[in-house]
Amino acid sequence: MGKASFLPFILFFLLGFEKNASAGRHSVNGCSAWRTNVESNNARGWIVVPSRCVSHVGKYMERGQYLLDFKIAIEQSLAYVKDLELRGDGKDAWVFDTDETTLSNLPCYREHQYGGEAYNSTVFNEWVEQGTAPVLPSSLQLYNVLLRKGVKIFFITGRDEDYREVTTKNLMRAGYRKWSGLIMRGDNDQGTTAVKYKSGKRDELVKNGYRILGNVGDQWSDLTGTSVGSRTFKIPNPMYYIS
Amino acid sequence: MGKASFLPFILFFLLGFEKNASAGRHSVNGCSAWRTNVESNNARGWIVVPSRCVSHVGKYMERGQYLLDFKIAIEQSLAYVKDLELRGDGKDAWVFDTDETTLSNLPCYREHQYGGEAYNSTVFNEWVEQGTAPVLPSSLQLYNVLLRKGVKIFFITGRDEDYREVTTKNLMRAGYRKWSGLIMRGDNDQGTTAVKYKSGKRDELVKNGYRILGNVGDQWSDLTGTSVGSRTFKIPNPMYYIS
Repeated sequence: MGKASFLPFILFFLLGFEKNASAGRHSVNGCSAWRTNVESNNARGWIVVPSRCVSHVGKYMERGQYLLDFKIAIEQSLAYVKDLELRGDGKDAWVFDTDETTLSNLPCYREHQYGGEAYNSTVFNEWVEQGTAPVLPSSLQLYNVLLRKGVKIFFITGRDEDYREVTTKNLMRAGYRKWSGLIMRGDNDQGTTAVKYKSGKRDELVKNGYRILGNVGDQWSDLTGTSVGSRTFKIPNPMYYIS
Repeated sequence: MGKASFLPFILFFLLGFEKNASAGRHSVNGCSAWRTNVESNNARGWIVVPSRCVSHVGKYMERGQYLLDFKIAIEQSLAYVKDLELRGDGKDAWVFDTDETTLSNLPCYREHQYGGEAYNSTVFNEWVEQGTAPVLPSSLQLYNVLLRKGVKIFFITGRDEDYREVTTKNLMRAGYRKWSGLIMRGDNDQGTTAVKYKSGKRDELVKNGYRILGNVGDQWSDLTGTSVGSRTFKIPNPMYYIS
């Protein structure tokens, strides 16, 4: 092997190393900063993922970090549940959101730039009607623990009543077999924010004597307002924002 | 240059590239997941940074990502302030926490494993008494914008009244030259959680006619409870947790 034949290799590794060095020394990432600020509820009211962050969000969602962040969130909830003292009177309750909390719409968002395209209700509703949204396994794990403990499960979703049948089928297919309520937007719930709609539905649960021990959602609008529950758990979601 | 003299270079670049490739493909990071869950208020009540994450937290704090996450948080607050309609009656108010919000204790935490060691009040108080905590520049920027707009600034800190003089000097030295209140823990504020103590102090401001337009803190205990303000901004802090 002649001296000259080393050169392409050297250039290749040199370029590789350059990239590495720059990633190692300057590990600053503006899209990671944006995502952190979404998760801590500082970045509000955004319509689409900033175009410069579409690639970052795609990698975050697809390469395991999203599911790991999710898993750690649920681990916190499991530790909380472990120490819970239940009254066992049938009024111990837990609230789950559905989309991006119990069911994943990633197969749909994958086709639409991970939230880099503006929300299109026609596109999204067509996807919902298929009833094939995959399970989010960490949430199913928590759900099973709660069911075994006799905690009543309430799903509160922004989905319309029109989608009750397909949502029920989708939840069953994903492994959620039993619940005390699947609460959906009816005719009287139109035109309000998620915070207001979901607060109202939780208020009703409390009026009916339920103690909301925990509340899991991927949007801060699931976890703020009134009757939020004794503890809330924020599931990551850098793909869309609902107020 | 003989052929053999290339070899060390090739090995060097090869190792560099290997590291890069692995960082790129398996971008899952358990400590990043932990940190995300701290920021979204899922991980609560922790005493020290998990030992496996001390190195991660150190890099996060030192290599720019912390300051960038901080900057993006403050950018959100600046966008909010820009659209604020002020009454200008002297009752427009803003609340800042001090430690890790307006002043940085990183020089102290750097010597103590970035929160990997349990909090030691003797060590921390000795550091506080030096009065040399550096400014957190993004917060100073927001502070200056608010001052120019005539918004009244209130610092609410968990520090004891004993440290009023040194804290005042430290704030001045860091560039905060004027405020309407530096609220510290007095004799009657001992033995309560930060949530309760800070809520009580904010309640008093509201009773005195102030409208808390915004509230910035690095702990969720700064931003939850009562009279939290029209908007809250969570500054990152993976080094310690205060309930």
